[in-house]
Amino acid sequence: MKRNAMKLGGRSIEKAALSEFSKHKGVIQIVGKVRVKTLGDLATYYTPGVSYPPLRIREDKALTYEYTGKGNRIGILSDGSRILGLGNIGPDAGLPVMEGKSLLFKKFGDIDALPLPINAHGVDEMVSFAKAIEPVIGGINIEDVSSPNCFTLYDRLQKELGIPVFHDDRHGTGVVADAALRNAMKLVKKDVRKAKIVINGLGSAGIGVAEIILAAGSRNLVMCDTRGILYKGRRDNMNGLKQRIAEHTNHNGMKGQLQDAVKDADVLIGLSVPGAFKSSFIKAMADKPIVFALCNPYPEMRYDEARKAGAYIAATGESGVPNQVNNMLAFPGIFRGILDVRARKINPTMLLEASRALAHSVKRRAREHIIPNFVDDDIISITADIAAAVAGAAIKTGVARRKMDPDRVRRDTKERLERYSRLEKAAT
Amino acid sequence: MKRNAMKLGGRSIEKAALSEFSKHKGVIQIVGKVRVKTLGDLATYYTPGVSYPPLRIREDKALTYEYTGKGNRIGILSDGSRILGLGNIGPDAGLPVMEGKSLLFKKFGDIDALPLPINAHGVDEMVSFAKAIEPVIGGINIEDVSSPNCFTLYDRLQKELGIPVFHDDRHGTGVVADAALRNAMKLVKKDVRKAKIVINGLGSAGIGVAEIILAAGSRNLVMCDTRGILYKGRRDNMNGLKQRIAEHTNHNGMKGQLQDAVKDADVLIGLSVPGAFKSSFIKAMADKPIVFALCNPYPEMRYDEARKAGAYIAATGESGVPNQVNNMLAFPGIFRGILDVRARKINPTMLLEASRALAHSVKRRAREHIIPNFVDDDIISITADIAAAVAGAAIKTGVARRKMDPDRVRRDTKERLERYSRLEKAAT
Repeated sequence: MKRNAMKLGGRSIEKAALSEFSKHKGVIQIVGKVRVKTLGDLATYYTPGVSYPPLRIREDKALTYEYTGKGNRIGILSDGSRILGLGNIGPDAGLPVMEGKSLLFKKFGDIDALPLPINAHGVDEMVSFAKAIEPVIGGINIEDVSSPNCFTLYDRLQKELGIPVFHDDRHGTGVVADAALRNAMKLVKKDVRKAKIVINGLGSAGIGVAEIILAAGSRNLVMCDTRGILYKGRRDNMNGLKQRIAEHTNHNGMKGQLQDAVKDADVLIGLSVPGAFKSSFIKAMADKPIVFALCNPYPEMRYDEARKAGAYIAATGESGVPNQVNNMLAFPGIFRGILDVRARKINPTMLLEASRALAHSVKRRAREHIIPNFVDDDIISITADIAAAVAGAAIKTGVARRKMDPDRVRRDTKERLERYSRLEKAAT
Repeated sequence: MKRNAMKLGGRSIEKAALSEFSKHKGVIQIVGKVRVKTLGDLATYYTPGVSYPPLRIREDKALTYEYTGKGNRIGILSDGSRILGLGNIGPDAGLPVMEGKSLLFKKFGDIDALPLPINAHGVDEMVSFAKAIEPVIGGINIEDVSSPNCFTLYDRLQKELGIPVFHDDRHGTGVVADAALRNAMKLVKKDVRKAKIVINGLGSAGIGVAEIILAAGSRNLVMCDTRGILYKGRRDNMNGLKQRIAEHTNHNGMKGQLQDAVKDADVLIGLSVPGAFKSSFIKAMADKPIVFALCNPYPEMRYDEARKAGAYIAATGESGVPNQVNNMLAFPGIFRGILDVRARKINPTMLLEASRALAHSVKRRAREHIIPNFVDDDIISITADIAAAVAGAAIKTGVARRKMDPDRVRRDTKERLERYSRLEKAAT
């Protein structure tokens, strides 16, 4: 990817975005995979030809994956309750974001993602909607649903639907942050299992990062939210998931605020609010502090500030500085792998393998390069590696409905993305 | 369109269809309208650029049409209860049909149609689903929903949603049949207002044809169903819509069976079951009988048989013989016009104007050419004419939310379809 074709300043981006979205009336469209040119084409792709696949599917529902686009199509499901940093602006205002996400799913994963910001009040209505549309899609990506509804929604969809459910804000963020952490830990020669890690933020992203770090073996993790340190038995501002997390973190039963938690920490990760980190926090940390300030679009502390305050390694969501932690690095490859082997669900092993593959894709590891970036690294290969890793893990853990050699997944993914790049040229 | 590229026999079509649907895994995909090549592109089309349109839409919901694909996107809504001639085979088995229809919407109307065969039990659940997905789509095409649910569903969606609702089985069939009838009546020099017209079949297609013929001024229409002639006060096998139709047809209060109804009829139209018409019916009709046997894929009487039995003009859904009455001639242009002027709803005037435009597009009217066909006629121009006519009618009747000169609609439609043809080449 090229570094630039336009000024990346705030005002010019606003102008460019409004003019581009308006000019094209959205960024995605539907296009045929086949050419309709003759009466024979019509007879094949519409009546009477189109009546034959239904007869097969009626006998065996699994054949939907053979004769339709279900297996490569997902729904981006949102109720518009927490769109980007904009809050509860509703499904209509959320539509451009879901369409933009769909564009990325196609570009980086060759996945057909339906934008589904819907009118829904509460989890029940979202579940009903998802059940209704299940025949059409092979997976769901929960997007921008406010907490704690997003957790309940995820659990219910996982249980009540027959297709895999992914929550990018939670699982995608978890994978990318964990991959960055893997490389950072190698550089400082510390062990994730023993290191003291502090995460500030107990929304979906904070929970997602905590889950994967715990799955990776962390035994010294401390979580904080607006009420301070999370501990077993805390009553204030809790929910079911926080209770579960409290069981597995903060084994010393520490109480207090974030500024207390960071003392002697090896790693500080923020998924909270802009400006939440102070220089004094970093100075209180252990040797060679690692600081990830991942709040988007404005971090807890800017990259340059974090480094200046003494962070040995820093990462943020900012573009234009080193170590941009960006979900785009992970979700297309993860879903590509899921769909290729028709995984029934997504489990921690699959996420860990995705993280391992992503971390591994950084060839020349350095303090300024703990995670790939879109300009210098080969995104197609990285996505293919992640897809292969996820597919392999799905097969190994018994959730794949189709066997497919991970090497073939890797090859297919590359071919798909190259083919789409050519089509993109023709479409634009 | 070329006449042929393959043998149009039953067995070879089955083989071709199964192999094509399986090879491509469905016939549609999502493709970007914009190219993502630089970091600037990412910043424009995704964060932070994508956050600006939502802020505008939050202030004015109508701007969704400006900044997203909503205005060119519709849902093809079905519960799988009456898929083609296959009956209630469910939404999963119905998916290939909805995807095929989506392909046609794109190819012939440049419309992005989401295939939505859903799990739904009854009208309430379909309405709930439609309300939930309303933020994403600018219109609904009801497809293959069994009668009488389809009628209730249509009424409720028209009333409870803010987007236009079309029922192709009903309105599309009505437009195409009425267009064919206009040309047939001119050839036999009869007047639709005075002619005795008999329609066999009171499902959605039969009702749709009756509605438009009545709107065109017919004063001597007789309807039949499996229980025989429909008359005011009939108790057997009735529903609300049939009662309404009974008020406006069969003014002589005739009772009996189809064979009684056809006596001295000028026109006989079937939307019923294969083989329902006998030669004796045609012999009992008035001078220069017009016979439309529109049951699909097997007509009430084959074209050749109808002509042999004495039909002066015949039409069926069969391909490979003259006068193929095919919804594909109408629905893309109708919806193109609806979307271009953002019509709030679809009214009888719009349908009548569509029919008039379609009839008018037949330049050399003849007994064997009362309706355009895909090989000899210029489908792009015909679609453009229909779109312009529908847009004009919507503006005239005050249901358009956007003024757009019908000539511009015509020009835009042609450009759109030509552009898509080029893209189709690249995609396949």
